[in-house]
Amino acid sequence: MSIYFTPGPTQLHGAVADCLKEAVESDVCSMSHRSRGFEHIVERATSSLRRLLGIPNSHHIFFLGSATEAMERVCENCVAQKSFHLVNGEFSSRFFQIAGQVKRAPEKVEVPAGEGFDLSAIQIPSNAELICTTHNETSTGVTLPVDGIHDLKRRYPDKLIAVDMVSSAPVPEFDFDLIDCAFFSVQKGFGLPAGLGVLIAGNKAVERSFELAAQGVNTGSFHSFRSLVEYSVKRQTPETPNVLGIYLLARICESYEEDGIENIRAEIKRRAGDLYKYFDAHPWLRPYVQDPKFRSSTVLTLQAEQDLHPLREALAAQGLHVGAGYGKLKDRQIRIANFPVHSDRDFTRLLEALQ
Amino acid sequence: MSIYFTPGPTQLHGAVADCLKEAVESDVCSMSHRSRGFEHIVERATSSLRRLLGIPNSHHIFFLGSATEAMERVCENCVAQKSFHLVNGEFSSRFFQIAGQVKRAPEKVEVPAGEGFDLSAIQIPSNAELICTTHNETSTGVTLPVDGIHDLKRRYPDKLIAVDMVSSAPVPEFDFDLIDCAFFSVQKGFGLPAGLGVLIAGNKAVERSFELAAQGVNTGSFHSFRSLVEYSVKRQTPETPNVLGIYLLARICESYEEDGIENIRAEIKRRAGDLYKYFDAHPWLRPYVQDPKFRSSTVLTLQAEQDLHPLREALAAQGLHVGAGYGKLKDRQIRIANFPVHSDRDFTRLLEALQ
Repeated sequence: MSIYFTPGPTQLHGAVADCLKEAVESDVCSMSHRSRGFEHIVERATSSLRRLLGIPNSHHIFFLGSATEAMERVCENCVAQKSFHLVNGEFSSRFFQIAGQVKRAPEKVEVPAGEGFDLSAIQIPSNAELICTTHNETSTGVTLPVDGIHDLKRRYPDKLIAVDMVSSAPVPEFDFDLIDCAFFSVQKGFGLPAGLGVLIAGNKAVERSFELAAQGVNTGSFHSFRSLVEYSVKRQTPETPNVLGIYLLARICESYEEDGIENIRAEIKRRAGDLYKYFDAHPWLRPYVQDPKFRSSTVLTLQAEQDLHPLREALAAQGLHVGAGYGKLKDRQIRIANFPVHSDRDFTRLLEALQ
Repeated sequence: MSIYFTPGPTQLHGAVADCLKEAVESDVCSMSHRSRGFEHIVERATSSLRRLLGIPNSHHIFFLGSATEAMERVCENCVAQKSFHLVNGEFSSRFFQIAGQVKRAPEKVEVPAGEGFDLSAIQIPSNAELICTTHNETSTGVTLPVDGIHDLKRRYPDKLIAVDMVSSAPVPEFDFDLIDCAFFSVQKGFGLPAGLGVLIAGNKAVERSFELAAQGVNTGSFHSFRSLVEYSVKRQTPETPNVLGIYLLARICESYEEDGIENIRAEIKRRAGDLYKYFDAHPWLRPYVQDPKFRSSTVLTLQAEQDLHPLREALAAQGLHVGAGYGKLKDRQIRIANFPVHSDRDFTRLLEALQ
């Protein structure tokens, strides 16, 4: 049996096959997105997600097409002029670029791929309206400390702060009183089919969007925060959404609740520790991220002197799929996801194959 | 067994359950959206769709989150200032509103719900850049003649023309040499789970988008036509898309090809004729659209003097789900979809229940 350690899309959660069958049998895909049945699915998904991630009622949960769309909607709705971005890889760079593409004037502080930030030393320009952070830079496996992100907001309470938690959710424990927007996609830490982005937006971000709209700023159309709020308070969405995706998210969130989110988080961290220890001692496959405090617990990037393409092929031939590196180091790196869908037994198989 | 005659989401195509099973078994949901496997799925979906709808190589096929998103992207990428809209119901009105929300200056010609347009008499303002038409107004069951839309483009060859074919595809036969943008969503005529919009964009529309971008117009970010083209030529998408949705679309398009698109179209039209004949003679449930040339073959709206909510409830109790009306006539109307997923036997059951 194949196992996907790719950092997203990744291994499907084991319950998905049965959930799909049940969805078809119970006509989930035929129900109207204006029906009680659909509202019930949204209620299940959002209430379970709130319990799982500790999302307070001050924050709305919006369903989008992807996390990339979330970047666009956050820029459109939280920024009139200037966003400020912490860039240290492909996806934090994408967030920065999107802000420019929707005609805002983003600024950035950038460090090389593989490095993190001393968040306590970051100075935000006084005219920046939004601070954009990437909790887990999927392209390199660099994580930023959750406390550091909280402290950034404490130092700049009048600015909005957004967190890309695409490849770390549901593992990090954010205090949403200190986070204005956070987003993820479901094909990573939730082990679901791709095609659904989740955006968590606090009242301050929504109010900001309303202010911008009142000033005549282009905040988008059907997925402006105004439109998203108008429907989300009714447990609906502006357009016909990925109903099946929301149903599956509800089911997997409930399954994570049964497992116990504390257990899941502890297991991810324990296993990440074990894996880094193993690879720190490995003869030719070493962790790419040098500073242990920036090492991601959910996406591990390993590097070698040689081309790792043959290794990836050999592993794939055994049904063990790992991700390639990103950008310039694409061929000399592999990326391994350590998500809640993966088990110790999966990693035993992988480490045995690597020997 | 329940049958959904709702105009979308509607009855799932009978093959979907097996396709979902096969998708899970063949790891469709775990494959990278940068992999050959994914490119192969895109190739299957787009080549089958090209054959089915007669889409020439001058036109790109883009995958979005919804048809509503397609409206936004068309306005962003084809219009600097003015779009011109033919409005005759909820969804054509949405297209018009979206243009305004993304800060264009749309104009419209509007007729009451239930009516169509004498397309040969429509005058387009000289400064309009894009003509927005709704082939099938899902809220009322009004269709516009395909030839009339073609003639509109012939009369205004220098303007771009967009066609909302959300609830009519794959039935109408458009000559894409006369259509710049067309879009639909998969939960209607393709009988698929919602969460995927398909936008067909011709070279002229793409060139226009490039011109607008060069002029500094905000054409969007990851789903600008520039970004969509950059990836679609590689059979990829800018973001991780609804891979499962694209896979299912490929499978159902191929199934429609096997059935023969001409057979499907003939059957839809024959059945629509039979149904309108039946309801024209019905004692209290009459076609809402008076003029036969504007009567949709895929979404039939029926109207009564009395509140039809109890009728819908009684039908639903027998597993026969029909749509409510829209807007002011919500309670006095029902809408019945006549899509390729529906069979004569389904309609026999429905008509028997209505007696």
